[in-house]
Amino acid sequence: MPFDPFAFLNAVGLVAFAFVGALKATDAGLDVFGVTVLGVVTALGGGTLRDVLVADVPASLQSVGDVTVALSGVALAVAVVQTTDVRLRDSPVVLVPDALGLAAFAATGALVGTDAGVSPFGVVALATLTAVGGGSISDILLSRVPVVLRDDFYATPAVLGGVAFWSVSLAGASVELATGLCAALVFVVRILALRYRWRLPTPAPRENRAGES
Amino acid sequence: MPFDPFAFLNAVGLVAFAFVGALKATDAGLDVFGVTVLGVVTALGGGTLRDVLVADVPASLQSVGDVTVALSGVALAVAVVQTTDVRLRDSPVVLVPDALGLAAFAATGALVGTDAGVSPFGVVALATLTAVGGGSISDILLSRVPVVLRDDFYATPAVLGGVAFWSVSLAGASVELATGLCAALVFVVRILALRYRWRLPTPAPRENRAGES
Amino acid sequence: MPFDPFAFLNAVGLVAFAFVGALKATDAGLDVFGVTVLGVVTALGGGTLRDVLVADVPASLQSVGDVTVALSGVALAVAVVQTTDVRLRDSPVVLVPDALGLAAFAATGALVGTDAGVSPFGVVALATLTAVGGGSISDILLSRVPVVLRDDFYATPAVLGGVAFWSVSLAGASVELATGLCAALVFVVRILALRYRWRLPTPAPRENRAGES
Repeated sequence: MPFDPFAFLNAVGLVAFAFVGALKATDAGLDVFGVTVLGVVTALGGGTLRDVLVADVPASLQSVGDVTVALSGVALAVAVVQTTDVRLRDSPVVLVPDALGLAAFAATGALVGTDAGVSPFGVVALATLTAVGGGSISDILLSRVPVVLRDDFYATPAVLGGVAFWSVSLAGASVELATGLCAALVFVVRILALRYRWRLPTPAPRENRAGES
Repeated sequence: MPFDPFAFLNAVGLVAFAFVGALKATDAGLDVFGVTVLGVVTALGGGTLRDVLVADVPASLQSVGDVTVALSGVALAVAVVQTTDVRLRDSPVVLVPDALGLAAFAATGALVGTDAGVSPFGVVALATLTAVGGGSISDILLSRVPVVLRDDFYATPAVLGGVAFWSVSLAGASVELATGLCAALVFVVRILALRYRWRLPTPAPRENRAGES
Repeated sequence: MPFDPFAFLNAVGLVAFAFVGALKATDAGLDVFGVTVLGVVTALGGGTLRDVLVADVPASLQSVGDVTVALSGVALAVAVVQTTDVRLRDSPVVLVPDALGLAAFAATGALVGTDAGVSPFGVVALATLTAVGGGSISDILLSRVPVVLRDDFYATPAVLGGVAFWSVSLAGASVELATGLCAALVFVVRILALRYRWRLPTPAPRENRAGES
């Protein structure tokens, strides 16, 4: 079997996302079942949402491969939490694989959307939802506002990747090229955003009305 | 192209829903990405949920029309928030277009449900979910109990509209008539509910058990 | 019409789930509409999620039978809340029917997954989501972390039931036998968990990092 760089990126992303999701769950004091669910949902949620939106049975339910990879990320998180006080979450050891996952997932979202014949907006929306959907669902399960909606430059690389995929496809690029460019752009923008602490502006109201619902 | 009153109502609703959703997001202090997502989700979420439930690829992902209209509502909200202290949310300038959107969305939900051959309950459920789904998803994203579940006479007009659509269809009315009646009923009931501050009764427990989960 | 034990279990579960969901909603102070929605969502949500995941129009929208049964559970809850101070929720009068529902729903999830040709993981995931999905969606609507993710031995029986269904199917058992074994196992494990207060371990971090998000 030849080396498939895309499948490799995807697996790295699954492990990183499951690791981050399981850490969030241990921080929230969930039991072993809850930690496993949060890790698996963080890893598989985005792709599952993507497939539901194009009216397919989710790929995540059609094999045991992805969930197995995700479970290894959960096991790693539990092992780390039980044996060390090191905070890995904000370290490059986690952030770089997480950025690879973001890149791989955004690219599969754009690809599936294109195959399903959705509009340019649909391509961008599916790229973004595939990349950030798992983390967002796990935030909702923890009764939190998804981090991507707050002050993080996390979803924006996926949006840009979706736009890039669609643009170069329109310009005649092959699917392989569009996928590769999309993933590369998402990864680079995400790493730059982390490195230089990029922030999107907040259109705050002139008087603060928070809490009025 | 002849004037299509239904498409017009739908566009008015998209702008109003996106405007209200974006305002909620600025109040909650989200950044530009979060504000855009909340506005777009509030506008497109109900129809997307409707299409997922009848196992279709969402219409919202199949064109750029709806999202473009929704983005204009988001832009309007950001402009208003940045330039004025006027609170538009509880003013007729927002509430009337919002009621038009509620009416248009309930009617499309009933219509899509009927086409998909669902049961009378399915027609009413889809009318209601299409009308209130976008606002509810955006409330969940903000980690709030959806307003429609609390003390507002907001979903009830959509329920009544769904019942009306199904009843007159059963009685032999054309799809056009059923759609028009449904939308008109939803709009009138919603406006009356606002005007006369209608409230549904609350079956409160004799002792207050809130907080016990 | 011959007696169908499975349909009977399913109806018992729908009533119990709707009853529990409606109680949660009255405790949270929702109005009549909110109480009805919470009850119906708790009863029908798991099956609806199951059908969406295998890309079918939900059975819950295709007949009026399930919703009618669920509404009877809601009516019962409202009547009990209005007329008595007795707390039924933790009594066997509610917990045993609830366990029957858990068993019936897990079995239908495994069955639908098997029919849809999903992987062993898909069978287990669908059994679990069908059983606990309705309660989890209603918790999310109330802006709470789903109870199943915290310290309750509630989802685990459904997971075991899904594993059992898949294992005996692989060993050549008929669908009827697999369904019956799955349901029986879920029910027995759930009742034992209640009786002996089983708990899953919590992989708490060595220092408590809760709240850091």
